[in-house]
Amino acid sequence: MLTVQKYGGTSVGTLERIREVAKRVAKTKESGSDVVVVVSAMSGETNKLIQMANSFSENPKRREMDLLLSSGERVTSALLAILLTEMGYETIAMSGRQAGIITDGVHTKARIEHIDRTHIEKELKKGLIVVVAGFQGITEIGEVSTLGRGGSDLSAVAIAGALEADICEIYTDVDGIYTTDPRIVPKAKKLKQISYDEMLELASLGAKVLQTRSVELAKKLNVNLVTRSSFNDNEGTLITKEEGIMEKPLVSGIAIDKNQARVTLRGVSDKPGIAAEIFRKLADEGVNVDMIIQNVGVDGATNLGFTVPQDELELTRKSMEEIEASQSLEFDKHVVKVSVVGVGMKSHSGVACTAFDTLADENINIEMISTSEIKISMVIHEKYGELAVRALHDAYKLDK
Amino acid sequence: MLTVQKYGGTSVGTLERIREVAKRVAKTKESGSDVVVVVSAMSGETNKLIQMANSFSENPKRREMDLLLSSGERVTSALLAILLTEMGYETIAMSGRQAGIITDGVHTKARIEHIDRTHIEKELKKGLIVVVAGFQGITEIGEVSTLGRGGSDLSAVAIAGALEADICEIYTDVDGIYTTDPRIVPKAKKLKQISYDEMLELASLGAKVLQTRSVELAKKLNVNLVTRSSFNDNEGTLITKEEGIMEKPLVSGIAIDKNQARVTLRGVSDKPGIAAEIFRKLADEGVNVDMIIQNVGVDGATNLGFTVPQDELELTRKSMEEIEASQSLEFDKHVVKVSVVGVGMKSHSGVACTAFDTLADENINIEMISTSEIKISMVIHEKYGELAVRALHDAYKLDK
Repeated sequence: MLTVQKYGGTSVGTLERIREVAKRVAKTKESGSDVVVVVSAMSGETNKLIQMANSFSENPKRREMDLLLSSGERVTSALLAILLTEMGYETIAMSGRQAGIITDGVHTKARIEHIDRTHIEKELKKGLIVVVAGFQGITEIGEVSTLGRGGSDLSAVAIAGALEADICEIYTDVDGIYTTDPRIVPKAKKLKQISYDEMLELASLGAKVLQTRSVELAKKLNVNLVTRSSFNDNEGTLITKEEGIMEKPLVSGIAIDKNQARVTLRGVSDKPGIAAEIFRKLADEGVNVDMIIQNVGVDGATNLGFTVPQDELELTRKSMEEIEASQSLEFDKHVVKVSVVGVGMKSHSGVACTAFDTLADENINIEMISTSEIKISMVIHEKYGELAVRALHDAYKLDK
Repeated sequence: MLTVQKYGGTSVGTLERIREVAKRVAKTKESGSDVVVVVSAMSGETNKLIQMANSFSENPKRREMDLLLSSGERVTSALLAILLTEMGYETIAMSGRQAGIITDGVHTKARIEHIDRTHIEKELKKGLIVVVAGFQGITEIGEVSTLGRGGSDLSAVAIAGALEADICEIYTDVDGIYTTDPRIVPKAKKLKQISYDEMLELASLGAKVLQTRSVELAKKLNVNLVTRSSFNDNEGTLITKEEGIMEKPLVSGIAIDKNQARVTLRGVSDKPGIAAEIFRKLADEGVNVDMIIQNVGVDGATNLGFTVPQDELELTRKSMEEIEASQSLEFDKHVVKVSVVGVGMKSHSGVACTAFDTLADENINIEMISTSEIKISMVIHEKYGELAVRALHDAYKLDK
C-alpha cells in the first residue's frame, strides 16, 4: 500500500497546522501504508515573495522567479521532515530536483516531462516517509522550474502516477466536491465519487479544490484522487475512472460559471473559412473561447455566437473589430453559464429535456445551448443564475 | 578585471538595502570589471527559520536543516538578479549547486571541496553579472549543504580563488579593520592594508567583519580580500599576502580577547608524556586550548598554564579532575588576552620590550606571555584590559 498525500498552503499555514499534518501523516504510516507527502509553501509566503519581486520589476525575469518561488516549498518540506523525525518516524525531505521531477524549460509555467522515481523509491524501500517540496522541478539542464498555479497538486499526481500509488489524497480547507455550490444551494450534497470527465466538466465547482490540469493528469496516469479537508476527518470525494464508479448517477452536479461573456456576430458571410479566420485570430490573441454556436444561415449570412472569459472581452472586441467579418457585433457581460453534468446521461435520454423544462417553468430564457456526452451547458441572463442552479438541483433530486 | 563582491545580511536586509547593493554592483560593472556577487540571506531570515525548526525539535535533523536554511540566500540572489535585470544589466542568479560549489557531506558545517567554475565562467564570458546564493553548496551525491557561520564569506573567497579574481570585496556594516577596537580607543585608525597572518592574529578585532576560516582560505588561495561597508563609500581594508604590502609596519594592531580563562596546574610531574596526555584529553573533549606555557621544572615537578574559552572552562575542569595529573588546579576567569600584532616585528627587535615596558609603566602585572613571529600575547587581569590596549596603542603610535 502506498499513499501520496498533498497538503496545500492553508493546511501548512502555521507551525500548529504543520503539527496537525504531521499527526495525519503519522497515522497513515501507522496504518501500514508507505507515505509520500507533497507540501505547498506556507500560505502567504509565495505571495510575499511575488510582491518583493514586483517591487523591483513589473515583469521579473522568469528564470529567477522560479529560483525565488521554489524556496517556500523547500522550507515547508524541511520543517515537516524535522517534525516527523522528532516524532520518531524516519523521514527524508526532498526538493523537486531530489524527488526527480523533470520539467520542460518554460519557467514559472513548466510542464512535468517525467518523474525519475529512483530516489523516492529507494527511501521508501528503507521504510522512510518521503516529504517532497511541491510546485517545483528541474529542467534537463539543471535549472530550477516551477509548475504554475496548482503546481503542488500536479507534483503529487505525477509522483502518484510514477510510483503507481494506491491513492493520492489532496488536502485543502474544503471537504470535497459538492453537487453544486453550497452557498447557492445549502442542501447541496458532497459527492462520494465522481469520474475524471465529470470533474473536468465541473471545473467551476471544484476550481477551489483542484485545478483542471491536475484532474487531466490524474486521468492520463490513472491516479485515484481523493480531495479531503485537513481540518476535519470527513471522508472526501474520490475522483476516479468511470469504470471504477459503481452507481453511475444520471446527473452528478450543477456547475455555474459567472465569468463568461457572450459575443454575437450577426450577418457573418456564410462561406467556408470565415469561422476559421475568426477563431484563429482569437487564438493568436490568447483569448480562451469556450462555447461556440453557429446556426444554419439564411440568405448567405449567419449569426455566430461564442463565449469568452469576462476579462478577455476587451481583447476580443479589438480582435473582432480588426477583422470586420460581420455586419454587427454584440457583447453581453450579463450572462452566466449553468451546466448539468453526469456520466449517466450518456446512456439515458431525456436528461436535457428535464433541464430545458425546468428553466422554462421558471420563465428563464436560454440564450445559448451547448452539449457534450456528459454535459448540458446553458447560457442565461446572470440575474437568473442562482435560481436556475437551485431549480436544476431540485429537478435532478441531487439532495437525495 | 574580475571583481567578486559579497554582501552580508544587513547589507541586503531590506528591499531598500538591496536597491543600494544593486547600484554598487552596477557601478562596478560600469567601471569595466566583470562582477560575481555573493549574497547572504536577508538579515533575520535565517534566525527565523532556525526558530521554526527548533520549535519542532531541539536537535533538528541536519540534512533537513540545510534544505531549510539554504532557502534564504536563494531568495536574495533571485531578488537582486531581478532588480539588476530591470536596471538593464543582464544578470543570472545561481544557487550554490548551480555555481558549482561542491562540499563534503558534513551537513550544517560543510567544507568546500572544490569549485566547478564552468557555469559561472560561461555566463561571465557572455557579459552577464552573476549573482550567487552564498553559504550553500552541494555534496557529491546531490545533497544540499550549508557552510556554517561565515559561510557566505567562504563562498565568495572560494569563488574568487577558483576564478582568479583580481579582488574579493566583503561588504558588511563595518568599515574595515582598525588598529584596535574603536570603542576602547576612539582614535583607533582604520588600516589600509594588512597581511593574512596579521589578520588571523587579529581575529578578535575582525571577528565581526571576517571569520578566521575565510582569511585562512583567502591566504591559501591567494585571494586579495577587501572588507568594506555597504553603508558608505569609505575605502576598506585590503587583506593580502605579506609581499604585497608596501610599507610593513612594526605593529599593525592591538587585539583584546575577553573570552579567555586561565588554567594553571601546579606540581605536574616533569616527565615525558604528561603534557601530551593532558592536551589529548582536552582535544578529545573538544576544548579549544589557546596559549600554553610550561616552564623548566624544579625538583621533578613543573607548573603548566594554558588558556581556554570561558564557556569551555567547566568542561576543562571536569577533564582535568579525571586525569589527576597535578597536585593542584587553579582556574581564573578574570583575565583577558591582549595581543600586539605586526609583520614588521619579524625583522625588528625590541618590539616585545616596548610592550612589557608599557604595561610595567602602568603597573599591570603580566600573568602569561606567549609570542609568535608576528605577535606578542599577554594575559593580564581583566580590570586592566582596556587600559593596556590604550597604553599599547599609544606606545606604538598607532594613531599616527
